[in-house]
Amino acid sequence: MSEAIISSAEELQAVNAYGWAARDTSGILSPFHFTRRTTGRNDISMKILYCGICHSDLHLAKDEVAMTIYPLVPGHEIVGEVTEVGSNVTKFKVGDIAGVGCMVGSCGSCGNCTRDLENYCPKMVWTYNKHYHDGSITFGGYSDKFVVEEHFAVRIPDNLPLEGVAPMLCAGITVYSPMRHFGLLEHGKHLGVVGLGGLGHMAVKFAKAIGVKVTVISTSPNKKKEAMEQLGVDHFLISRNQEEMQAAMGTLDGIIDTVSAPHSLTPLVDLLTTDGNLIVVGAPLQPPELPVFPLILGRKSIAGSAIGGMKETQEMIDFAAKHNITADVEVIPMDYVNTAFERVAKLDVKYRFVIDVANTLNSPY
Amino acid sequence: MSEAIISSAEELQAVNAYGWAARDTSGILSPFHFTRRTTGRNDISMKILYCGICHSDLHLAKDEVAMTIYPLVPGHEIVGEVTEVGSNVTKFKVGDIAGVGCMVGSCGSCGNCTRDLENYCPKMVWTYNKHYHDGSITFGGYSDKFVVEEHFAVRIPDNLPLEGVAPMLCAGITVYSPMRHFGLLEHGKHLGVVGLGGLGHMAVKFAKAIGVKVTVISTSPNKKKEAMEQLGVDHFLISRNQEEMQAAMGTLDGIIDTVSAPHSLTPLVDLLTTDGNLIVVGAPLQPPELPVFPLILGRKSIAGSAIGGMKETQEMIDFAAKHNITADVEVIPMDYVNTAFERVAKLDVKYRFVIDVANTLNSPY
Repeated sequence: MSEAIISSAEELQAVNAYGWAARDTSGILSPFHFTRRTTGRNDISMKILYCGICHSDLHLAKDEVAMTIYPLVPGHEIVGEVTEVGSNVTKFKVGDIAGVGCMVGSCGSCGNCTRDLENYCPKMVWTYNKHYHDGSITFGGYSDKFVVEEHFAVRIPDNLPLEGVAPMLCAGITVYSPMRHFGLLEHGKHLGVVGLGGLGHMAVKFAKAIGVKVTVISTSPNKKKEAMEQLGVDHFLISRNQEEMQAAMGTLDGIIDTVSAPHSLTPLVDLLTTDGNLIVVGAPLQPPELPVFPLILGRKSIAGSAIGGMKETQEMIDFAAKHNITADVEVIPMDYVNTAFERVAKLDVKYRFVIDVANTLNSPY
Repeated sequence: MSEAIISSAEELQAVNAYGWAARDTSGILSPFHFTRRTTGRNDISMKILYCGICHSDLHLAKDEVAMTIYPLVPGHEIVGEVTEVGSNVTKFKVGDIAGVGCMVGSCGSCGNCTRDLENYCPKMVWTYNKHYHDGSITFGGYSDKFVVEEHFAVRIPDNLPLEGVAPMLCAGITVYSPMRHFGLLEHGKHLGVVGLGGLGHMAVKFAKAIGVKVTVISTSPNKKKEAMEQLGVDHFLISRNQEEMQAAMGTLDGIIDTVSAPHSLTPLVDLLTTDGNLIVVGAPLQPPELPVFPLILGRKSIAGSAIGGMKETQEMIDFAAKHNITADVEVIPMDYVNTAFERVAKLDVKYRFVIDVANTLNSPY
């Protein structure tokens, strides 16, 4: 990876690119011309086929966490076709299908990078809205093409529908990684999933693929029927139904909490068995209270987790291919993106919007 | 253990006992006559030699957590000499030294009990201030004698000074258990210890015995010299010294937080490496805020832990005997207990008061 930092003059040349960008805190996207670097020795270039819409795309488009660099081209759930490979590239050839998730760079040498945890590298470079090694600002996948070090792209097997693969590069790995790390993706375990959106429905699919028992905890009774009939969820708890919650106390080995809206963690900790883990992957803007006594009285933990490393992301894709898992998506044209953003804000999507970039962006390049 | 529930008529007879009890929320202790059960088939009876003073004794004596049953005989750091054994007892004979910690009963059949985690059994019986299986209220170790199922007593080797052993039955196991469970009692690890009191100094001793690097995080600069010179602490951070705290960020594999006074957990989480655990063993009355982002950005965890199981408590005593570890204590006579309580409230003790029960209680029985 370090070679990519010392770019040759050739690599510093740019190619024209085209996408949709937010220009201000309205968060409204519109067509945008920009450039990307040419294919470096360790890079692959891709024609983007599909890009998923993640809730964080909205937050950043509207600068809700006060860290947006405008113009902002969102998108970190990218699937594309390889159009060019650098001289050192070994993992891809032209015509292959590649996936890119939330990160496109890391230092390559720290304790985290050397343990395949690039996602926790202090110098990790996000796929968009970050300064890349060469000083440029990264632009995401709501665009026609992408250039990325091969290390930060994963191979996509050809048996999966690509529009359903795209959301796995963020939503999928975000739940897969902690499920694996905390020993929850094991037959016989009982997993709780808080929130049945893009992330939650992926957690259910991974779990059910290998016989993990799943309890969904939700505020939405209207999601119950589909969850149980279509996704195979075993139990569906309405979080405000105290009787249901009480009856389920001490039953879950672990919980993946995907909800970033403010909510109390105490009832969730109460659902855990001794030594159970509550893993928070959606961060509320206001920190919740830590239920200290319930943790102490059952040696329970609350952990955080952020996406996954590249090795684990490939493992997740391979797991998905083996078990024929993809996200349930609503495919939309590029010019529907602002409406899609409004619907995402209202949680009105089952379970992820995916932009059909290749067929609807109409790139002039 | 279940046999102890079905007591014979003989076992239901009582013997006279004498101790010191709190009678009201003043928390002031005074002499108190009561009874204990006779030695049951699975019981041992002990003459109490030493009993440590735990901070929770004060909280309960003053009913600060609104669960006190008066009169209250505190004390759950008990060392005594076995005076009688029941017919089923195999672990002890008369004249042996036995230790009793925070619990004297559990269901014996739940998932926790069968995994040697009686400390997390929902029916666990605390050593004092709890209803025992037979309906009686348990009385603690500020008293002349004790009767307990042998399962809830540990063998004390004869090479340790007994006054220094007593505090290990609560303070010792409370830190030993999470250090073991979370993989921190391993050569080469770097442990943080928040608060250098009864619990904290035990954590330091266990860690240093096997070459674990220790950083103490404290509010008290005046503890630094002794900590480094006497206890062998490697680093001593003053928590309000932001420069020191900043320089230590990302260095600790785990932290045992023994402080129940309100304090922010964010600076502690920042001290952890990726995958680090902050283990809270002292519960503040007001729950702190959960630092969600710092947890997510390093797959860090905050866990709770409560004492340890009986098997692990014996293991801790054996570990202490092997490494010649006991608590640093100030031995006091029984009638000093109210003054000792005042000093404990001011944290004015290095590091634990232990009552010389056998020599100073003057039991009439």
